[in-house]
Amino acid sequence: MSESPKTSIKDANLGVRQRQTPDINIEITTIDADISGSGKSQQTNSNLNNVTSTTADGNDTATGGKDTATGGKDTATGGKDTTNKSGSTTKWGVHEDLKHLQEEDIILAATLVIDAKEGRNFTFKTEPTYVRSYNLYHKFYLRYLLYLMILFNLSLALFEKPAKPGWEIPSWASMILETVCLAYFAFRFAHSAFFSRRSVFWKDTKNLMILIVIVLTFIDMICYIIWDNVQNSTRPVRWSRPLRPLFLINFPDGKQIRRAFRNIRRTVPEIMNVLILFILSVLLFALLALKLFSRRNLVYANGDQYFKTYPDSIWDLYVLVTTANSPDVMMPAYDNSNWFALFFVFYIVICWLIFMSIVLAAIYYSYRKNLKNEIRAAVYGKRRKLAQAFDILKVQKGGRLVVTYTAWCELMKRVIPNRSRSHIDLLVRVLDIDGSNMIRKQQFLKLADLLELQLTEVKDRQTFLEQKFPSLYNSFLSGIVKLVVRHKGFRYFFDFMIFVNAWFIGFDVDEADWFFLGIFMVEIILKLYTFGPREFFKVFWNVFDFLVIGAAVIASAIEAIEDSTYEEFQLLDYLLVLRVLRLFKIFGSIKRFKVILQTIINIGPSIITYGGVIMVFYYIFAIIGMEVFQNLIHYYDYYKDSSPPFCGNAALNGTLFYRNHYCNNNFNDLLHSLVVLVELTVVNQWHVLASGFVAVTSKVARLYFFSFHMCCVIIVLNIFIAFILEAFILEYTIQKVGKLESYVEQKIRDLGLGLGQTGPKQRHLSTANDDSELVPNEELSNVDNPDSDSDTDSIPDLSTERGLRFHLKKKSRKKVEVLLQQMFEGEIDPEDEGPENETEIYTDRGPRRVTLDTVA
Amino acid sequence: MSESPKTSIKDANLGVRQRQTPDINIEITTIDADISGSGKSQQTNSNLNNVTSTTADGNDTATGGKDTATGGKDTATGGKDTTNKSGSTTKWGVHEDLKHLQEEDIILAATLVIDAKEGRNFTFKTEPTYVRSYNLYHKFYLRYLLYLMILFNLSLALFEKPAKPGWEIPSWASMILETVCLAYFAFRFAHSAFFSRRSVFWKDTKNLMILIVIVLTFIDMICYIIWDNVQNSTRPVRWSRPLRPLFLINFPDGKQIRRAFRNIRRTVPEIMNVLILFILSVLLFALLALKLFSRRNLVYANGDQYFKTYPDSIWDLYVLVTTANSPDVMMPAYDNSNWFALFFVFYIVICWLIFMSIVLAAIYYSYRKNLKNEIRAAVYGKRRKLAQAFDILKVQKGGRLVVTYTAWCELMKRVIPNRSRSHIDLLVRVLDIDGSNMIRKQQFLKLADLLELQLTEVKDRQTFLEQKFPSLYNSFLSGIVKLVVRHKGFRYFFDFMIFVNAWFIGFDVDEADWFFLGIFMVEIILKLYTFGPREFFKVFWNVFDFLVIGAAVIASAIEAIEDSTYEEFQLLDYLLVLRVLRLFKIFGSIKRFKVILQTIINIGPSIITYGGVIMVFYYIFAIIGMEVFQNLIHYYDYYKDSSPPFCGNAALNGTLFYRNHYCNNNFNDLLHSLVVLVELTVVNQWHVLASGFVAVTSKVARLYFFSFHMCCVIIVLNIFIAFILEAFILEYTIQKVGKLESYVEQKIRDLGLGLGQTGPKQRHLSTANDDSELVPNEELSNVDNPDSDSDTDSIPDLSTERGLRFHLKKKSRKKVEVLLQQMFEGEIDPEDEGPENETEIYTDRGPRRVTLDTVA
Repeated sequence: MSESPKTSIKDANLGVRQRQTPDINIEITTIDADISGSGKSQQTNSNLNNVTSTTADGNDTATGGKDTATGGKDTATGGKDTTNKSGSTTKWGVHEDLKHLQEEDIILAATLVIDAKEGRNFTFKTEPTYVRSYNLYHKFYLRYLLYLMILFNLSLALFEKPAKPGWEIPSWASMILETVCLAYFAFRFAHSAFFSRRSVFWKDTKNLMILIVIVLTFIDMICYIIWDNVQNSTRPVRWSRPLRPLFLINFPDGKQIRRAFRNIRRTVPEIMNVLILFILSVLLFALLALKLFSRRNLVYANGDQYFKTYPDSIWDLYVLVTTANSPDVMMPAYDNSNWFALFFVFYIVICWLIFMSIVLAAIYYSYRKNLKNEIRAAVYGKRRKLAQAFDILKVQKGGRLVVTYTAWCELMKRVIPNRSRSHIDLLVRVLDIDGSNMIRKQQFLKLADLLELQLTEVKDRQTFLEQKFPSLYNSFLSGIVKLVVRHKGFRYFFDFMIFVNAWFIGFDVDEADWFFLGIFMVEIILKLYTFGPREFFKVFWNVFDFLVIGAAVIASAIEAIEDSTYEEFQLLDYLLVLRVLRLFKIFGSIKRFKVILQTIINIGPSIITYGGVIMVFYYIFAIIGMEVFQNLIHYYDYYKDSSPPFCGNAALNGTLFYRNHYCNNNFNDLLHSLVVLVELTVVNQWHVLASGFVAVTSKVARLYFFSFHMCCVIIVLNIFIAFILEAFILEYTIQKVGKLESYVEQKIRDLGLGLGQTGPKQRHLSTANDDSELVPNEELSNVDNPDSDSDTDSIPDLSTERGLRFHLKKKSRKKVEVLLQQMFEGEIDPEDEGPENETEIYTDRGPRRVTLDTVA
Repeated sequence: MSESPKTSIKDANLGVRQRQTPDINIEITTIDADISGSGKSQQTNSNLNNVTSTTADGNDTATGGKDTATGGKDTATGGKDTTNKSGSTTKWGVHEDLKHLQEEDIILAATLVIDAKEGRNFTFKTEPTYVRSYNLYHKFYLRYLLYLMILFNLSLALFEKPAKPGWEIPSWASMILETVCLAYFAFRFAHSAFFSRRSVFWKDTKNLMILIVIVLTFIDMICYIIWDNVQNSTRPVRWSRPLRPLFLINFPDGKQIRRAFRNIRRTVPEIMNVLILFILSVLLFALLALKLFSRRNLVYANGDQYFKTYPDSIWDLYVLVTTANSPDVMMPAYDNSNWFALFFVFYIVICWLIFMSIVLAAIYYSYRKNLKNEIRAAVYGKRRKLAQAFDILKVQKGGRLVVTYTAWCELMKRVIPNRSRSHIDLLVRVLDIDGSNMIRKQQFLKLADLLELQLTEVKDRQTFLEQKFPSLYNSFLSGIVKLVVRHKGFRYFFDFMIFVNAWFIGFDVDEADWFFLGIFMVEIILKLYTFGPREFFKVFWNVFDFLVIGAAVIASAIEAIEDSTYEEFQLLDYLLVLRVLRLFKIFGSIKRFKVILQTIINIGPSIITYGGVIMVFYYIFAIIGMEVFQNLIHYYDYYKDSSPPFCGNAALNGTLFYRNHYCNNNFNDLLHSLVVLVELTVVNQWHVLASGFVAVTSKVARLYFFSFHMCCVIIVLNIFIAFILEAFILEYTIQKVGKLESYVEQKIRDLGLGLGQTGPKQRHLSTANDDSELVPNEELSNVDNPDSDSDTDSIPDLSTERGLRFHLKKKSRKKVEVLLQQMFEGEIDPEDEGPENETEIYTDRGPRRVTLDTVA
């Protein structure tokens, strides 16, 4: 969201066309005459457009003077000159309202609306060619191909040296595959360079980064080939491999991950002071410890020297801050004199308890601030895009600037191409405030929220069977089945069966396995029959059920066919055992746990984003670790006599690393490296892991483990915790406070389509011009069953409701980000499109007044 | 703050007296006639007083009608009937303004004001005897004696069986000492029962708790004596000992600790759902792990069985949530098949990363909510006390209810008895809004804030030398010395010397020890001479310096005299080495670290409160642990051949506990127990510690360690982190936002006494009737030296400022609690004295509107 949305506003209104403006005094025909699509005159016009729209479209009593002013502005809006568009005049211009619009304008406006809806933030050239190119760029297949290519590029490390035995491919093969990936990246990059404005494009760090990484990778490949051929004595290094995740971060499509990284980038400088002070404290205490203990000739339980040198002293105390060597580091001194315990207690209180809490506090503080700024920037960006779209489409009707119904339909045809006319009509009714079927600016700015709402037509919700065999599906017997499935008892019965099954599993009674699998399969089939696949799979617990039971069935089947021994089919075992996880489903249906589980499920997608961030760090550290530590430690069975001693490396003799049987924690391939990094993230015993690699290399290796701990544990993990804190408190507050309605939801309620108004009598509205309706159905069902939402209760039975045509998705499932945006929109002026200079958004303006609400 | 402050308001206004009320129509003499001090008529009168004061005292244009209404109320206020007070009429009644007041009224009002200032919340009877008794109760010597007795009672555990060898005293001796403590507790309890209203007193849980604990302790003692004499085969148990910390919590004097406990008590039910869900998840995953691993015959590196039984499986996975056995718990399965790593990674992500973060989030959410409610209750309680005091003192002057100057002086004589008349005059000037020397209700309610401000008279700031030997102290030579000490270079020089000293210590050059000690002693003496002890010790870093250097000098002296060997004088060593800590002082003078260090210093006192809370838990667990595990494990030197093997307990043979040399971690006396508990709090290796005690007892012992982890780590530690988060963010916001002025500070600024107005010319104010002045001096010096506050810069040189008489302490040193109260006061109506029913304060009313500010 950070790339100057203001500039794109200017570009959007480049064409100028004079329109019927009855009350206008100043004729702007001179400007009109100049237009020939040249960049220079565009500049002039955009300046004209720079006047911020101050018309209070929401006011019913707009003064004439105001209208004149806005009329003057209107003349600067519109499309191209019509001379070279004669082919389309037959289609366009038949309708009075579309006279001022070219098809290109509609496409541009639709593109801007989609941008606003998707939260994209590109500044593209607005000539038709570039707009088409821009739309092509965002086609889902090109985007998914990019994701695939990035993933493929990253996963190359699995097959490059060092790899699992048997997985390795020759280096020329991996380089060819990488070249393919890079070629696509370069194509994608060139594509975005094509439609972007040059001045903006090349100032953007992320574009520069992509280019640099592509170039560096090619240089690296050439280096590698030369190195490999010329000098055979040393192992050549592919040093560009840790740069691969940068594609994930820097391609504009990875919006969420980039945002998380931006948050980290902004947070780090702010907490640097705390971190430096923390490091200084550790250094100071290390000096103290050295003075206290070095002359006492103490030894650790394993015979190691105790605080002998300053670097060792620093390392031991740094490890103590991570608590990993507590209480071992204290014991020799404590045994020597009980008073020495005071030193360690004091150190732990200061550096672990207080400093680590303060690091978390500083990160949380900075995270909240950055989050607010991000949200602010996103909302302003969205508004600017919509305002641009409105400026293109608007005409003056009855002294007011509006988007007409015809223009609306043309726009929507492009924005939501798969929806029916009645759907589009419905949307117009929500945005239209006076029944005139025309949309004013203030309402138009809500369009992104409206499109965000998940409206589905009831017709689409009919199951496949209902559509194909209506008589069979709606027969008496089928009706009874459906009634039974919808009944509460159905759910209670199967919850009970899960519980019984868990007991059977717990007591190792395998005989009933097929019985339970059968039961649960019947449950799923019945539910699928009643609700149809579309609705069935919308509920989290159903997907969960389906996956677990499906996997269990397949696993059981394979096991039965293969008649295998237990040892071989661990993976199948794994799947069978997953059935126990279904007990979570029961927790989900207990009311007191629902808020918590719902919160976890709701913040799930964002957690995955942070998972991506952590994976980026893991990948970089794994590649570096593999280059440095590969094949130094091997895992051999500890109990076989034929195994080489000490994990194949005599340096491990007597180390805790070997004695704790940690040899499988090595950097010999990507997957093993990742497991080691996970263990390092969990922190415990990380110093033992480090000591193993120090033993086989040198003490310099500690730097690798130290920097990993700093990056991934102290910074990234704390940011993750800050995120969970924030998201949880947000979800919790909202679920407790209840309603957080956006404008459009409120409007739907105001239209008489809300709860309790859905009875058959009120269903036909006076303002409605057809029988389409909106039903916030799930809210209805929520009131009936307070413990719904667990399984199938949240799927309303709409089969008997013939008057209903639309169904509104439930509120509580909103993404955290959407919630935050709505909150922020509630705070700012509806007309506010943000400060001129977008860097202002990021400067912390601080709370306007310090109150308990803002601080505590 | 929770004990019905409303009731106490009613009680305060019990006496009714008719006063000169010119515009009043309804004569209330009938009520007056009834008064004879009986409780029944008090009841009637308090009903009359129940009318909430709705007079807008702050408005300058109060209407006549309003005055009539308040006049009617006024008649219900005042003191006793004058007949039995003839002795004091000579003193009272000489002044017109004091005619309506008895000395008892003034004392009562002063008591209420002190209560408001100190934040006390007692409901005492308002008859003179009880008020005097109440004031006696709060005398500092009785309070400190109580603290001493509580501490003494707690420390008895050091000398009771089991104790350090040589520390043990016979059980009859400890019981006699405990009886002394209990007797004082009983006396204190009876004292508070005497002046409290019976209905309130016996409904209060904390009073009941004290009584119960006293009774139980006596019963326990009798039981112990009988048990000890009758049956010699078993070891008698003093089971009431874990109850001892309850005195600390339940005596009303331990306000801070009680509040922290209340916060914990309120938080626990709210996070219970999360904890239950978390435990259920662990149980479920334990079942899964059992299914996956139990049949594979895997073993741990030390040969232990791997996930063989369900309880072991639960224990291992619970320990994994604390990360203490990672990655050991994974290695056998991972070595068996790499895929099993997935199970553990999944478990760690769910139960450690997400669940533990959610526990923290839930605790933080609930902490913030409770904090807000605490603050709200405290502010309302303070206002009610002040409103009561105002109601007693008020007279009607010029159609307005005010406290007159004479009444004010009488009040202040009792509230701040040691201050001069000009100090009292100064305060009146701050509260008086129109220069009439009379205080209205709205201003009177600010009195507690005003008294909270640390005003000191400049005269008091003169050093002892200046007062005794002014000619010498103010001589030319002395002037130069003072000038040098105040110069920046002085500080820079000594900062540099600290740094050099640290290098010498680092490189073990002991020869220069005395040189550096001498240098630093000179520094301290010079500073003491220049600033005087009072100002010197007000600055944190000076106290720090003084303690460190003082201790080092004493240690060095002892070492020099004794000429001892190194091994014997560890404690002295310890003190010598503390000099290195002075490097922190340099950090404190670097600007970028100042905010952080300042924050840590500011939240220090509250951290100590939480330290007290943790000590209560530690004490309880230590006593229980000592009863259960005493003398099972002993520490012997591991390297001496004469030591008994396996820490004197063969059951430890081959355990990790013995191999890690953890034998000194035992429960053989209080101090050792506390060290074990600290180690358990740090979490790492806690399962190894537990395994040692399991080996010498049974697996049931795990319950002790599990419950300790749940109580102290998951709940108390997270609440502590929540507190640090909140306090840090608060301090940080305020230090960044800058000003957070309370009304009185603003008033001081408005009076023309603010920054930049302290030049000699502006010093004499038009409104001032004497030459007293207020100087927010430290703010002044802050502007001059942005990097002040580190050492001595914050001590202004007032010696040349003859016109100044008062000095205002700096703002940023305010306690967190005071800041929060001021914030909350900014939010509520100045007249609001809180809801009638005080339980309403604690019901969460939720944010009025969900905005980014309230949630994000």
